[in-house]
Amino acid sequence: MQRTQAMISVQPNWDTFHKLRTSEKIPFFSKDDRLYDCLFAQQFSRALLEHLFKTADALRAATRKKEGADHVARLLSHKRAMLYFAQPSTRTFMSFLNACHVLGIKTSEIRDSSTSSEVKGETPEDTVRTFSSYVDMIIMRHPAPGFVEKTAWLMNRTGRPVPIVSGGSGKDQHPTQALLDVYTLHRSFAGELDGKHIVMVGDLKRGRTVRSLTYLMKNYKNVSLSFVSPKEFRMETDILDFLRRHNIPFTETEDFLGVMKTADAIYMTRIQDEHDKSGESKGVDYSPFYFKKEHLKVIKRGCVIMHPLPRRHEIEVTVDEDPRAVFWRQERNGMWARAALMAYIFSVDNKIS
Amino acid sequence: MQRTQAMISVQPNWDTFHKLRTSEKIPFFSKDDRLYDCLFAQQFSRALLEHLFKTADALRAATRKKEGADHVARLLSHKRAMLYFAQPSTRTFMSFLNACHVLGIKTSEIRDSSTSSEVKGETPEDTVRTFSSYVDMIIMRHPAPGFVEKTAWLMNRTGRPVPIVSGGSGKDQHPTQALLDVYTLHRSFAGELDGKHIVMVGDLKRGRTVRSLTYLMKNYKNVSLSFVSPKEFRMETDILDFLRRHNIPFTETEDFLGVMKTADAIYMTRIQDEHDKSGESKGVDYSPFYFKKEHLKVIKRGCVIMHPLPRRHEIEVTVDEDPRAVFWRQERNGMWARAALMAYIFSVDNKIS
Amino acid sequence: MQRTQAMISVQPNWDTFHKLRTSEKIPFFSKDDRLYDCLFAQQFSRALLEHLFKTADALRAATRKKEGADHVARLLSHKRAMLYFAQPSTRTFMSFLNACHVLGIKTSEIRDSSTSSEVKGETPEDTVRTFSSYVDMIIMRHPAPGFVEKTAWLMNRTGRPVPIVSGGSGKDQHPTQALLDVYTLHRSFAGELDGKHIVMVGDLKRGRTVRSLTYLMKNYKNVSLSFVSPKEFRMETDILDFLRRHNIPFTETEDFLGVMKTADAIYMTRIQDEHDKSGESKGVDYSPFYFKKEHLKVIKRGCVIMHPLPRRHEIEVTVDEDPRAVFWRQERNGMWARAALMAYIFSVDNKIS
Repeated sequence: MQRTQAMISVQPNWDTFHKLRTSEKIPFFSKDDRLYDCLFAQQFSRALLEHLFKTADALRAATRKKEGADHVARLLSHKRAMLYFAQPSTRTFMSFLNACHVLGIKTSEIRDSSTSSEVKGETPEDTVRTFSSYVDMIIMRHPAPGFVEKTAWLMNRTGRPVPIVSGGSGKDQHPTQALLDVYTLHRSFAGELDGKHIVMVGDLKRGRTVRSLTYLMKNYKNVSLSFVSPKEFRMETDILDFLRRHNIPFTETEDFLGVMKTADAIYMTRIQDEHDKSGESKGVDYSPFYFKKEHLKVIKRGCVIMHPLPRRHEIEVTVDEDPRAVFWRQERNGMWARAALMAYIFSVDNKIS
Repeated sequence: MQRTQAMISVQPNWDTFHKLRTSEKIPFFSKDDRLYDCLFAQQFSRALLEHLFKTADALRAATRKKEGADHVARLLSHKRAMLYFAQPSTRTFMSFLNACHVLGIKTSEIRDSSTSSEVKGETPEDTVRTFSSYVDMIIMRHPAPGFVEKTAWLMNRTGRPVPIVSGGSGKDQHPTQALLDVYTLHRSFAGELDGKHIVMVGDLKRGRTVRSLTYLMKNYKNVSLSFVSPKEFRMETDILDFLRRHNIPFTETEDFLGVMKTADAIYMTRIQDEHDKSGESKGVDYSPFYFKKEHLKVIKRGCVIMHPLPRRHEIEVTVDEDPRAVFWRQERNGMWARAALMAYIFSVDNKIS
Repeated sequence: MQRTQAMISVQPNWDTFHKLRTSEKIPFFSKDDRLYDCLFAQQFSRALLEHLFKTADALRAATRKKEGADHVARLLSHKRAMLYFAQPSTRTFMSFLNACHVLGIKTSEIRDSSTSSEVKGETPEDTVRTFSSYVDMIIMRHPAPGFVEKTAWLMNRTGRPVPIVSGGSGKDQHPTQALLDVYTLHRSFAGELDGKHIVMVGDLKRGRTVRSLTYLMKNYKNVSLSFVSPKEFRMETDILDFLRRHNIPFTETEDFLGVMKTADAIYMTRIQDEHDKSGESKGVDYSPFYFKKEHLKVIKRGCVIMHPLPRRHEIEVTVDEDPRAVFWRQERNGMWARAALMAYIFSVDNKIS
């Protein structure tokens, strides 16, 4: 489990390292050819995704009975994790916390953004290194872009690194959300993601989840995408360029009803008005981008409706009772996918069943 | 463990359901003829109470030695509970949390009333359903009347219900407080509650615990009650009517010293001035309703002094050293009674010894 | 495990007890000739220190493999601890919490100084006694001088005492910090503390850690001390008198560079400006009391650099990479020393390997 000294010495300082392309950075966050720190959706190859899905499925199956659940809870009973959430997110926090508990990992919590203020002039780096002294893994959410990555970089240069798993960093990276979204597609289609038509709906400009999910689509064959949004919140051009480069067909439209009929998955998102700079969401009529009960008659029999949650009014509550509404299962998939990821990081993924 | 579809379908919507009488609702919160969601003191029949007391006693006995404690902590080691306290109550919270730990249940905590604000427009129902995705039980305290019941009702209509245990809902229902109070009487009288004279003292108008405890007295034979309070805070007429209907004799008085001599149990309560609308507590002389050291000479040798705590000045601190002052044991009884309840809900109550 | 009634009865009230000398109090906080409540650094004799260090070393060794870690985590799996931190200190909190988890102790947390406000007029003593109902140990940090000691005193007079371990009380006592500091010296010198020259640097007047550490030096032979500080923040005369009484040689100086060369350990501290009464720290030039990279060439090959952390600018960050910079290990030593202490209190210290 030792990273080679060579690898460390070639990364002389943070500023140089930080400017590298993601693909160049990934080896530094790996160990023995396995993902070690989880920071970018780009770290998930198709092979790794499928391995993690199999692991998550195995965890579900094993824990259905008490004996299996107890067996799984012994796998990492010797490990301690800290959940360091400098930015609140009860949903992601609870998902990770319970994923730890599934595996028997003991947990410590920091859920208060003001915690740093008490430490009397200490740098954030010293704070994190302190906490790492007591545990075997840090699950970290932080509002500052790059902070989680920098923590992982720093820890890897010490004599006692611990894996850093991102629970959301800045406004761009939230790799385990992408992981659970693809896992939900995988389960909905019995593993057959190739060739599907996926419709993403809502505030595509500012939704972190639709961006990551789109990136991961390059791992699959013949997937086509439709982006449905008000014109003010269209998908950003960097993503569209990415799709063109990878020859992934896509359309952009405001006609939700039109593309709905051929969708295999509809990924709904809410308006992200917390990112408004000057109330630009206020003037937008978002209602054409709602999924309503009447649409259930329009969509295909096998089409699934997803949502990263929380929702506001994008999906009518009565839709929840339809078996194609999988967003509640998607929540639960998150816990299993995260547990699978942690089992993988600690190399107990082959001991589940 | 399946509730019949029939039962669910006859409850078309919340408003209709909510207006039913408590006795009509109880079957909906049961499963396989066992209590499933714990919401009302009225769910505790005498048979169930005695079963839970026996279970609590068995838990205490079993955990006295390490082997027994470890055995008990394996009973529910495959379960995860969330303590969702939208209204703070460190006392009830800690009692439940440690009861979970006794049984090996892994715990997640929400102890912050402001948590809901972070979830960006989500309904409280969606929030709870989200959290339920990760766990096997929710222990919930909420300031809004009916909210805990509505949560249980909603969860029971989903494909993945989890039991909901109330830790206090609105100002009326706090069923596990009633449970621990009767358990304390039960232990104090070696199981012989029939025929006892119970004196309740203080702010009876607004004290939730004395109301619930009074209701539960209908389960016992020949119990007589005395209500001692300032005239401003007399027991409400709905309770007095209830007693008349069930032929339970009671007296109302301001003469604490007079009834004290024949009491088998004295249940002290503090003034509930947090419920004042316009400072009405200020004008009341509460001191005639204090239990003082000198009273220890007046009461019967077997009389117990109870208090739901926290106390202010209702019981002099020097009284604590008298063996008849059982309110500290009452606290601890709460943890055991709650552990017994959860063992029952998960059907491991028969595996304790 | 019973304290004799005689011992309790000779301590009639708190005010009388509190005024006793520390050495007179210590028996009251012991049980079966072992430390029971941990309140003062003075409770650690040399024999006890060395026993705890051996225990801490055994814990580290045993937990290096999964089997050993699981064995250790079963030692106190039947115990529950409450961490009651009325004064925030995430560092000490996390160290204790994870020490509990190492031993399998289940934990409850109070980390909010405002918690007491919710309990509606309850005395702090009642609050603590309530919490003690649910657990087997309380780890307590409190801003009020003497509060932790009073809690231990009170609990020892009840029918159900639980050990109280101080995590810092007022501005004087923080016994486990002293314990981990001596443990770090012990490990750095392979157990050979006798004869060493220890240099303490910084705000010695108001630094609680340097005071406690100095006291503990009386346990070792031929130790010499140098106190390096700005003249405004010299070590207090009570400590210097203590050293004279015990014939421990010391010097006071502002010449850091001069004493550095012969140091076996340099204990750095930050300026404690949170204790300023009227900004007296502002006028002090603290920079001559910084440890800089260039000093690494000056100090002895075996000299260790310690710091209780958090640091500000007292130690340049580039110093961290030198193997003699042991302050990160010192953090981690804290967790092991605390785990050893708790194993000792519960008498499982002989079952580790």
